[in-house]
Amino acid sequence: MQTQAYEVLSGLHCPPEARVRIIEEIARGTGTINGMIGGQVVDLEAERTKPDAETLEYIHRSKTAALITASVVTGGIYAGASPEQVTQLRSFGHAIGLAFQIVDDVLDVTQTSEQLGKTAGKDAAAEKATYPALFGLEESRKRAAALLQSACKAVENFGPQAAVLKDLARFLIEREN
Amino acid sequence: MQTQAYEVLSGLHCPPEARVRIIEEIARGTGTINGMIGGQVVDLEAERTKPDAETLEYIHRSKTAALITASVVTGGIYAGASPEQVTQLRSFGHAIGLAFQIVDDVLDVTQTSEQLGKTAGKDAAAEKATYPALFGLEESRKRAAALLQSACKAVENFGPQAAVLKDLARFLIEREN
Repeated sequence: MQTQAYEVLSGLHCPPEARVRIIEEIARGTGTINGMIGGQVVDLEAERTKPDAETLEYIHRSKTAALITASVVTGGIYAGASPEQVTQLRSFGHAIGLAFQIVDDVLDVTQTSEQLGKTAGKDAAAEKATYPALFGLEESRKRAAALLQSACKAVENFGPQAAVLKDLARFLIEREN
Repeated sequence: MQTQAYEVLSGLHCPPEARVRIIEEIARGTGTINGMIGGQVVDLEAERTKPDAETLEYIHRSKTAALITASVVTGGIYAGASPEQVTQLRSFGHAIGLAFQIVDDVLDVTQTSEQLGKTAGKDAAAEKATYPALFGLEESRKRAAALLQSACKAVENFGPQAAVLKDLARFLIEREN
């Protein structure tokens, strides 16, 4: 499936320069250095240790935020965004990606399995390092709210065009499952 | 590793148009339709059945020849080959790729494990469909020799520049392990 993804990407209907950049973004976002695979590896390793806040942030940034960021940024590149706009979209992606994972950690603590549609309390049962475990629920909620603010600010320049992005950010942070 | 390959390819020092074509060739050559993964899947399935000559050729073309062809063709694209030259390189790659696998099948029958540096007779022990099993040793050798001829002919236009490619083709077909 991964191979086929790159075959599809190489045939996208946009200039070759943009196609190459899109492929690079997707490869990095899913990759081993600061991407999804790298984050997943460190996350699995962390199940046996007690990661500090820095490691936890690396895991969340890589495992979750990197591919969300790549999705946002490649949409911009495909649509012909300027370098400055791409930078703004990247900040937006980082912020909602990290917020998404913090909210995920919070919901695992506060919601029932029925509300989540998946087993609640899994992280605590596995003694997994999470934002609530490291910083407490209140501080985690504040962090997510601050990231929502900075996400919205990052795309301020886009004006009304950014309405959908802001709605998406709010939806991710205010969701209950 | 696969993800990193595409990250590296997207940063190659050649025009973006060429980079996209190289990425597409590698994705196809390793992919599921007529590429390495597809060939490997059919090869594994064929261990329980008796594939006919057509299926065997599909396996060899996909599992072995497709990635060899992609290697040859992408070298050409990187070096700025014309569309006509790329077609010639593709014919060359198909021919040496298929020949390589036929020779592999032949050596598995004719050489000792010591000569091969790996277990000989594995294919027969697994009752695997091979060129020698389907066509006999003599016919298989003839087929490999004919493919060597057509590989050399495919790059005839390149003149002395094709010397290394022809040497490579001869080496693959005349090797003893």
